[in-house]
Amino acid sequence: MSKNTNHQWRVACYPESNELISENHFTWTSAPIPEPATDEFLVRTICLAPGPAQRGYLEQSQSQFFGEPIPIGDVMRGRGIGEIVSSRHPNYSEGDIFVGSLGWQDYSIQKPHGSEFVFSTRKIVSPRTPLSLHLGILGQAGGTGYFGMLEGANIKHGDNVLVSAAAGGVGSVAGQIARIKGAGNVVGITGSDAKCAWLCDEVGYTAAINYKTDNLDQKLGQLFPDGIDVFLDCVGGEILDTGLKHLAMHARVAIAGFIATQYLPGPATGPANYNNLLFKRARMQGFVYFDYWDRYDEAETQLAKWYDDGLLLNTEYLTEGLENMPAALADLFTGGNRGIAICRVSADAV
Amino acid sequence: MSKNTNHQWRVACYPESNELISENHFTWTSAPIPEPATDEFLVRTICLAPGPAQRGYLEQSQSQFFGEPIPIGDVMRGRGIGEIVSSRHPNYSEGDIFVGSLGWQDYSIQKPHGSEFVFSTRKIVSPRTPLSLHLGILGQAGGTGYFGMLEGANIKHGDNVLVSAAAGGVGSVAGQIARIKGAGNVVGITGSDAKCAWLCDEVGYTAAINYKTDNLDQKLGQLFPDGIDVFLDCVGGEILDTGLKHLAMHARVAIAGFIATQYLPGPATGPANYNNLLFKRARMQGFVYFDYWDRYDEAETQLAKWYDDGLLLNTEYLTEGLENMPAALADLFTGGNRGIAICRVSADAV
Repeated sequence: MSKNTNHQWRVACYPESNELISENHFTWTSAPIPEPATDEFLVRTICLAPGPAQRGYLEQSQSQFFGEPIPIGDVMRGRGIGEIVSSRHPNYSEGDIFVGSLGWQDYSIQKPHGSEFVFSTRKIVSPRTPLSLHLGILGQAGGTGYFGMLEGANIKHGDNVLVSAAAGGVGSVAGQIARIKGAGNVVGITGSDAKCAWLCDEVGYTAAINYKTDNLDQKLGQLFPDGIDVFLDCVGGEILDTGLKHLAMHARVAIAGFIATQYLPGPATGPANYNNLLFKRARMQGFVYFDYWDRYDEAETQLAKWYDDGLLLNTEYLTEGLENMPAALADLFTGGNRGIAICRVSADAV
Repeated sequence: MSKNTNHQWRVACYPESNELISENHFTWTSAPIPEPATDEFLVRTICLAPGPAQRGYLEQSQSQFFGEPIPIGDVMRGRGIGEIVSSRHPNYSEGDIFVGSLGWQDYSIQKPHGSEFVFSTRKIVSPRTPLSLHLGILGQAGGTGYFGMLEGANIKHGDNVLVSAAAGGVGSVAGQIARIKGAGNVVGITGSDAKCAWLCDEVGYTAAINYKTDNLDQKLGQLFPDGIDVFLDCVGGEILDTGLKHLAMHARVAIAGFIATQYLPGPATGPANYNNLLFKRARMQGFVYFDYWDRYDEAETQLAKWYDDGLLLNTEYLTEGLENMPAALADLFTGGNRGIAICRVSADAV
């Protein structure tokens, strides 16, 4: 980062539905650092959090969910944490730490927002070091795991829990929260033996399944002889469908995403085993972190306490440098990351 | 019915997965009327209730849900209401009215059961005339509509409601309960213009859609400009999938069955639009009438009150004669019935 230049990734073109997202879809540009107007402030980006939804911002087919695609030539949208470096807003001062939609750039002009979808932004009252924690276990990944387990899945002591994309940002936190909440078995599904080992040895999963080499159906049968009580799914497709086959009575399936099918061309397939919801009197429910805006403080306080108590591992997976944001986003679709994807743009302290 | 003979329908063979159920799968036999042993009693069948699940009793592919298929040569299983004509059980007397798994026959030996799946049986404390009410709006159809709307769908005042198989037994009650509970629009999906007219003119639906001739997707868009809050689905397949496309925020989908896909050969398809559960923070939940065993009295009392108050129409669809049970069952799969299928085996009073 140059202190006098604002580097930015701008949208160059939209990916085809079967095309992997890559640097080809963005243009690297530079501009002067902007000046805040009245009631605005200037934020220096410290970290950005690449998220699968960011691909959705670039596709007409996803516009019903994410709004119209970001116009070609605009700065790419993205959630991050930063420091206020100059302010013309009475409640936001130089040195304050701010989390919100900073965009893929070194500096951005911001103002306070409410709980609008994607744009929820706020000043961090008690910043913790490293500040990336507020994008990770104390931020969207942690909060999604927290509300997913507590609200989406209504987890209870003794529940046997399955998490898909377990080595991803949400999954690596969700499994830990399940364990902290007194779950029975906590099983994660991921795409490599190395990630399986990491989930069990470091993150605290009871067992892990490599969906690329294991027979998922068989493994679920072995690992859940009494069925799955809680299933947090982030991937959809065959993994969701196979998981539904193994539900226990009164199971709760929390849907956090469907990265496996969302960007496929052609008509998507649905989970045929949804009929097990009837046979097992189970429920499947979608949940979105941003809906719990008024409980962020509760989640952050609890997650921070678990972290301080050594119960919650920071599963941050760091990429260095704004210039590597496109690659960090692409990693989410190829399984390149292991934990919560964070891209460090500048140092915590100047 | 001969007073000295017990006519019975016995299982002759199992239907192929793509074969319609018919009289060919049963054998009509006669036997002497049996005598109850100690703690047993003899029940004269008054009415039987044909139900889609009865086909499931005859298929290996359904055994995970219904248990092993009924052995060839056994009397066909079926729920009914009858009068105790002789008893060797202290709590069950001659003249008592009894509801339970009577089988497709004139007489059966019974004893009290608990809340076992399918076999839940009980004495009717305050029988109402016609007794078929206890198989219909006061029985399984009414109870499924009641618990489906109240528990499965958690209906709230003002909800806009969609019911599939609306002219079926459950659907014809569920729509009425939605209306009684203060729903906004109550829209039913069925398979003929005559049934559409019946739903709107007599049953009290706000609007009806003929899925065979209407464009379901378009119609749902027109009838639910603000989306569907409550969807009670009994059919699955394309109707479920299209309904999911039109969910409102925080919608509740109650799954009562999937007659459209359950008996199809080959791999079933699932509802691709389940992803709307996430976008709309909605839930989809299966529910089964038999689970609410300890609340049957509450449901029956409430349903009877609505009936007495003229709020709940008896949508019974009568077939006369035990000999017509196979045809009455087949009707459920071809849309031949209109309302709650009841087969009258003998008169209420002898």
